[in-house]
Amino acid sequence: MEISGTEELVTEIRRQLAEPDPRALAALVSGAHPADLAGALRELELPEQVTVLRQLPAEAAGAVLYEMDDDRRLALVEALGQGEVSRILDEMPPDDAADVVEALPEEQASQILDRMPPAEAEEIQELLQYGESTAGGIMTPEFVAVHEDMTVAQALEHLRKAVTREGVFHVYVVDSHDHLVGVVPLRRLITADPATPVHAIRRPDVISVTAETDQEEVARLVTKHSLLAVPVVSRDNRLLGTITVDDVIDVIHEEATEDIHHLGGVSADETIFDPAGKVVRRRLFWLLVNLPTAVLAATVVGLFEPSIQALAALAVFMPIVAGMGGNAGIQTFTVIVRAIALGDLTVANTRKVLFREAVIGLANGAGTGLVAGVIAYLWKGDPLLGLILGLAMITNMLVAALTGTLVPVALKLLRVDPAVASGVVVTTFTDCSGFLSFLGLATLFLRFLHPQ
Amino acid sequence: MEISGTEELVTEIRRQLAEPDPRALAALVSGAHPADLAGALRELELPEQVTVLRQLPAEAAGAVLYEMDDDRRLALVEALGQGEVSRILDEMPPDDAADVVEALPEEQASQILDRMPPAEAEEIQELLQYGESTAGGIMTPEFVAVHEDMTVAQALEHLRKAVTREGVFHVYVVDSHDHLVGVVPLRRLITADPATPVHAIRRPDVISVTAETDQEEVARLVTKHSLLAVPVVSRDNRLLGTITVDDVIDVIHEEATEDIHHLGGVSADETIFDPAGKVVRRRLFWLLVNLPTAVLAATVVGLFEPSIQALAALAVFMPIVAGMGGNAGIQTFTVIVRAIALGDLTVANTRKVLFREAVIGLANGAGTGLVAGVIAYLWKGDPLLGLILGLAMITNMLVAALTGTLVPVALKLLRVDPAVASGVVVTTFTDCSGFLSFLGLATLFLRFLHPQ
Repeated sequence: MEISGTEELVTEIRRQLAEPDPRALAALVSGAHPADLAGALRELELPEQVTVLRQLPAEAAGAVLYEMDDDRRLALVEALGQGEVSRILDEMPPDDAADVVEALPEEQASQILDRMPPAEAEEIQELLQYGESTAGGIMTPEFVAVHEDMTVAQALEHLRKAVTREGVFHVYVVDSHDHLVGVVPLRRLITADPATPVHAIRRPDVISVTAETDQEEVARLVTKHSLLAVPVVSRDNRLLGTITVDDVIDVIHEEATEDIHHLGGVSADETIFDPAGKVVRRRLFWLLVNLPTAVLAATVVGLFEPSIQALAALAVFMPIVAGMGGNAGIQTFTVIVRAIALGDLTVANTRKVLFREAVIGLANGAGTGLVAGVIAYLWKGDPLLGLILGLAMITNMLVAALTGTLVPVALKLLRVDPAVASGVVVTTFTDCSGFLSFLGLATLFLRFLHPQ
Repeated sequence: MEISGTEELVTEIRRQLAEPDPRALAALVSGAHPADLAGALRELELPEQVTVLRQLPAEAAGAVLYEMDDDRRLALVEALGQGEVSRILDEMPPDDAADVVEALPEEQASQILDRMPPAEAEEIQELLQYGESTAGGIMTPEFVAVHEDMTVAQALEHLRKAVTREGVFHVYVVDSHDHLVGVVPLRRLITADPATPVHAIRRPDVISVTAETDQEEVARLVTKHSLLAVPVVSRDNRLLGTITVDDVIDVIHEEATEDIHHLGGVSADETIFDPAGKVVRRRLFWLLVNLPTAVLAATVVGLFEPSIQALAALAVFMPIVAGMGGNAGIQTFTVIVRAIALGDLTVANTRKVLFREAVIGLANGAGTGLVAGVIAYLWKGDPLLGLILGLAMITNMLVAALTGTLVPVALKLLRVDPAVASGVVVTTFTDCSGFLSFLGLATLFLRFLHPQ
């Protein structure tokens, strides 16, 4: 973690904002990367943000808008005014423009679209039909397609004239009904005889997705087959657009952040730049959902109050059984949740994995139980207390292994994201079973335990 | 989670293995994706694996070997014999071949390389110099480069003749000393006048990395600049190879799995297919490292044994303070660890983020403390007990916010991966401070608390 380029950029922008001549500011911000500029704008006041954005060409201003978070972007869009925003959107890649429009209030979005050239507005509107996290929602409608009966020479001529913003590395081949029938990598087109018809050199086994395909599935396909782009087709196989690998990388980062955040009990899209009030509402909700599980664990302890009254030392060792069981449960469920996400865990191998986790749980319970039991014996001078602690830890680690495996599998079968809830459910199980096994065994043998 | 293609493939392979004519088996496995085949081989015995691999062309066999996990691959390499393995390696992309060789025992690796054609063996050996997780370790030495003084027509002719396995989408431009001086996207080459010299149409601002660059940094560059490939250069800017985006996607997945696993206290590369004995050794180590932290929390409780002896009800509410504090601490540190990984948290904004987390912690402590306090009051009929529980929860959530922020920041400054250790350190802090604040306050006001 070093002083990042963002802070230097902010300082530099502030200095130039104070100058009367805007040309140096224009040169500075035009040379910066959109993502860095979006980061720098976070540190500036709204009127300063507007001044900076107005120094940029519309295309660059669009890239910066795209990189900003929703709340700040909304404020900036209002400050810029609908006319200016519609000019910026017009210069953006349609898929990015659609993402910006999607995050605006409905009325404002439609007024801004009304001010754009009808063809571009329609393109954006078509993209808005698709769900945000589907192939349709992340595709761009820009691509180069040629008819299968064209010759290589004609295809190259078509490619020269085609107007696209995104880099072109594949030429898609369609039939007379615009159905996708193949793909030709650019290099193949260059190396082929100019008189050859395109259908003779196309690769017919092109991997495509429909507009409704979930973006996670798209990412999985691109990863598995090492693709640079995926064509998106309608249900009747008409070519609608393409998804390039850079958009897929964004999806992969987004899904990883989502999984990590869900495992930690925070919203998928929370960032350190969110206002505190918003964060409190969302995190507090999750904590209050968790409170009953903590109360449940407390209730289990409550069952054994008389035993604790008789021997307060029991309360000392409770956190060890519960805490170590929780750690082991989290180890198991982390591996299981990730294996489900990567597609490694299937219905067929669940039984084998469950058995393996049970063996691991018993072994780890024996290992940690032995050490903890010896510590308890040395501390309190009572071998029976050590034995009870060790047995409780073995029991609890077995419970941790079973719940750590079965809870995420069950949630997945119920079509709930296992990352969202498994952690809490697993640690609730290990808390309760830890208290139950330790205090239960201690109560059973209470009259043989040394009072201090 | 559905019955995956892997199980069907295993069944189908088993059926064909029983047939006397191997041609149907060859057709079946040649049509399968290498990743699926590697998954299917996991379910088969070693002699069956050998039979299957021998039905594949060397290039496809290499792709399957590459997709397998280290332990299984090692067994299979020994079963196949050095001659056959060297023939397979010869047909693999050199970067993948180097990864396979790297995982073999040193002596075996050098014997296999000795059996390969010297040029290919040398290429692999050169790749092996670089660290596994550096740009050099993931690059391929195959690329198309042209001299800056060539014309477009000459460059296209060169491209037609170039032998490369990987898809080519950019042509790199070098000077007379093989220094990288630019890049030309394939499409630009097609659209340019054939007589133009390449240096006139090259983009000179090509983003490159040195062979020593960390793979995570490469992934960050590719993501930020939406690249399809990055050229890798020596320290004096000679072109050594390229990294294609599909390898970068593998890095991104690998780093995400690593972060998720470290957060859950398991090794970066553990999978559900690892043998139980290996997993026990690695997880048990981590659990035993954690044991002292659990003992530390127990020691804090031990300080207050007389209070618990006087009022066993205290033991009932201990898990609520500690558990809810742990949950809140994990929320904070999840967001902070991810913000560090994504480069959002910097030295300059840490103070602001810390203050914001403290405010959130106090607010969430007040919210959950109020609810928990009321529950305790209704349960035990003692308003003072409820008040003490509420105050302890506010204190503990403030501690959770501060440690959840400062522990990962401190680890990052010490150059330790914050994902590895923060979780345990944070929950140890919240356990101890939870027990300390709750039992401490209760001890202070013990004579005013109702015995039951």
